[in-house]
Amino acid sequence: MKTSFIDTQDFTKEELLNIIDLGLSIKKHLKAGNHLNVLYHKSLGMIFEQSSTRTRISFETAMTQLGGHAQYLAPGQIQLGAHENLNDTAHVISRLVDIVMARVIKHESIETLGRECSIPVINGMSDYNHPTQEMGDVTTMLEHLPPNKKIEDCKIVFVGDATQVCASLMMIITKLGGTFVHYGPKDFQLKEEFRQIALENCKTSGGQFYVTEDEDEALKDADFIYTDVWYGLYEAELSKEQRMNIFYPKYQVDMDMIKKASPNVKFMHCLPASRGEEVTDEVIDSEYSIVLDEAENRLTSIRALLVYFMGKENETREIIKNNLEN
Amino acid sequence: MKTSFIDTQDFTKEELLNIIDLGLSIKKHLKAGNHLNVLYHKSLGMIFEQSSTRTRISFETAMTQLGGHAQYLAPGQIQLGAHENLNDTAHVISRLVDIVMARVIKHESIETLGRECSIPVINGMSDYNHPTQEMGDVTTMLEHLPPNKKIEDCKIVFVGDATQVCASLMMIITKLGGTFVHYGPKDFQLKEEFRQIALENCKTSGGQFYVTEDEDEALKDADFIYTDVWYGLYEAELSKEQRMNIFYPKYQVDMDMIKKASPNVKFMHCLPASRGEEVTDEVIDSEYSIVLDEAENRLTSIRALLVYFMGKENETREIIKNNLEN
Amino acid sequence: MKTSFIDTQDFTKEELLNIIDLGLSIKKHLKAGNHLNVLYHKSLGMIFEQSSTRTRISFETAMTQLGGHAQYLAPGQIQLGAHENLNDTAHVISRLVDIVMARVIKHESIETLGRECSIPVINGMSDYNHPTQEMGDVTTMLEHLPPNKKIEDCKIVFVGDATQVCASLMMIITKLGGTFVHYGPKDFQLKEEFRQIALENCKTSGGQFYVTEDEDEALKDADFIYTDVWYGLYEAELSKEQRMNIFYPKYQVDMDMIKKASPNVKFMHCLPASRGEEVTDEVIDSEYSIVLDEAENRLTSIRALLVYFMGKENETREIIKNNLEN
Repeated sequence: MKTSFIDTQDFTKEELLNIIDLGLSIKKHLKAGNHLNVLYHKSLGMIFEQSSTRTRISFETAMTQLGGHAQYLAPGQIQLGAHENLNDTAHVISRLVDIVMARVIKHESIETLGRECSIPVINGMSDYNHPTQEMGDVTTMLEHLPPNKKIEDCKIVFVGDATQVCASLMMIITKLGGTFVHYGPKDFQLKEEFRQIALENCKTSGGQFYVTEDEDEALKDADFIYTDVWYGLYEAELSKEQRMNIFYPKYQVDMDMIKKASPNVKFMHCLPASRGEEVTDEVIDSEYSIVLDEAENRLTSIRALLVYFMGKENETREIIKNNLEN
Repeated sequence: MKTSFIDTQDFTKEELLNIIDLGLSIKKHLKAGNHLNVLYHKSLGMIFEQSSTRTRISFETAMTQLGGHAQYLAPGQIQLGAHENLNDTAHVISRLVDIVMARVIKHESIETLGRECSIPVINGMSDYNHPTQEMGDVTTMLEHLPPNKKIEDCKIVFVGDATQVCASLMMIITKLGGTFVHYGPKDFQLKEEFRQIALENCKTSGGQFYVTEDEDEALKDADFIYTDVWYGLYEAELSKEQRMNIFYPKYQVDMDMIKKASPNVKFMHCLPASRGEEVTDEVIDSEYSIVLDEAENRLTSIRALLVYFMGKENETREIIKNNLEN
Repeated sequence: MKTSFIDTQDFTKEELLNIIDLGLSIKKHLKAGNHLNVLYHKSLGMIFEQSSTRTRISFETAMTQLGGHAQYLAPGQIQLGAHENLNDTAHVISRLVDIVMARVIKHESIETLGRECSIPVINGMSDYNHPTQEMGDVTTMLEHLPPNKKIEDCKIVFVGDATQVCASLMMIITKLGGTFVHYGPKDFQLKEEFRQIALENCKTSGGQFYVTEDEDEALKDADFIYTDVWYGLYEAELSKEQRMNIFYPKYQVDMDMIKKASPNVKFMHCLPASRGEEVTDEVIDSEYSIVLDEAENRLTSIRALLVYFMGKENETREIIKNNLEN
């Protein structure tokens, strides 16, 4: 069994679906007013090299709900590889807490933590991927599947910039055997490295993958339309005007796009959204939008990952089962 | 029932006194060594746009004592209305925690949170008011009432700058039917907007209200003298010398003022104090001073507000009652 | 009984060994999978004037394991003696939490907190000493004693700059009756003030103390070699080159030094380490190195100090004893 969660590519379809199922079971258990003390008095170290709202709050709430505690090590409070080398940090923190998560600037840092820590490590986003987001997103799709469809039957269209959320969503959808389309401008499409992963995944899973600049082809029969901020451009600190020049109006998700998709289409966004840029108010506030369920499922998937990697899956499933029987 | 605590003006005298009474009951229960797990595994999101010592520690200790956990979202960690609009933040945080408190720069922000959140919201101070301070202050007055007097019989004199603490104290005292006097220099007195509120409150409650520059009139028979830093001037970053020029020596609370009041007068201050400015060491360290009891009652009132707005009043009163009987 | 832990000089050898023993008992109890809820719902206020990794995480994990909660008051969030005087801060925080720890810039601040707080205070490092480090270090030595030796029989050699860790280690070793040697360059040796303490301690304990620039004399029969970053030079923001000019190569702990010591010698470092400066990779990564056990024992000693100063020693020993019997 893998002891850390760095990349969904390290796991099989069955393993990923099992963790997602565990998350849905825990969610139901807690929503019914039950408690779940499986991480009683355990400590999670949360290392953030960049600030975060959703990821940090989700981990902190999850630890509280599971009977433990999350320590927030804010940007600047631990400087990975600054005052001491990263290996030393990994070895020390393994002695002082029970599990660690990190949001890192460079993917290499989370790989080093995963390798050097003797406790479980969860990737809370790097410049390469965002696997806890992936897990929450699939959880949300399973809750909002179109009638009579399984996830393998669904077409998921990511519109806009090839952010790490785009790459991550591609990885899990192709791994699970669904259809993933990246609809974005030529210079901002998924790079060759990711296309190779997609094709490898599809070979095993029977999924489908393509990248296109053709809107009609992209959106035809789409079950989920997903977008993200025009991230790369934020990073480069380009002005709103410069960002708009590249993506607008073609890649803004508006009601015209929604109408080109399946009548049951759902709109997703990892948030925060720059309304009026990558999505219109009309779409994000519409009945098609499931962005708040998606935000809530960050918590759903993170709870499951904490339970799973702390080796508490069996105990948890037993507690939930006994509770249902009584 | 109101689901949020933004402004004491939204509540009746009876509701406010009930919450204060709940706080006093919980305080007694805990001081006797009992526990109270009514917020077991619940999460409070604490959003601070400005830093704070007393408010933050009080909320965090309160959540621990009630079996839950408070998440400290420090200034800069969540930028209200920056990377996403405030409505989106409100909607998302409502999915990830159970209750939220916020110290905001603009009162409009706490009003928006109160309206948009689907979970309870507590105002931890804005540029307009400071209602958790009000509740703790009245709690403290009830513990230190002059012999044979009720709060309705008391004269409370606020000396100095019309800060939001001054305005807040005015609102709750006139709501409860006491006498509130603001003794301050003409340009730093409570504004017309607040005078209207005071007069309206008095009409219903039978309380009294006036503003004066006459020290003898202000302090005659005063039961409580209250002051605060010369705040507006701190905000404008004026030097100590400039602040002193406006308020000193007339509005510094010294032993001469204490002597002009009732022999049973008590001195209050929301803290932190700038000793030697708005109050002398002699007064704040004297037997008249109840500033530490007042600081402790931030915790008393905040515990009660958390319990009340999480819908746990009845359960709590039941636990306390059963405990007393056994 | 002392109510605060500011300086190990305030305690007898027996008191210090008792607290260390308490820590080892709790460690064994928890490692066996037991819980210890003796600080149930208690709050620790952690005031940090300087940031910290090991100390902060250890206190936070310890409070969680003991059933309580640690509040992290980061540098800048509480400005000791800035907006209010330090006495006022001490008095207020005593009303809002149950115990306080502080890492302070000036030792005077922790002394003031110890004197003014009505709750227990633990010194989390000052510019003068680092007593929680001392306690963890002796804990680690007891776990790694050479065959047939007691701590009183051991020779501990501190190599390099006379940091507060050096001074602290000297104080506890001479208090316990061991032999302490500071091997460092003339201008960076323990000052007269500390030498007086060492000599006084040795008079009572039978321990030995000297300072030397002679490597062979220092290292002969050494049981523990300890070093720290060339701290004073970091503080003065000298470049690596300037630091190296003063200490390198003579005071870098390398395998040649290890070979000059006892065959059972252990290498210790409070961390973080500047590898390639005060210690070589070869030494810190060798079988002689016990730096990770030492880091873990920050937690061991801090748990014991929290239990002891919260007045829970007897209850804790009872719980552990009953657990072993059943």
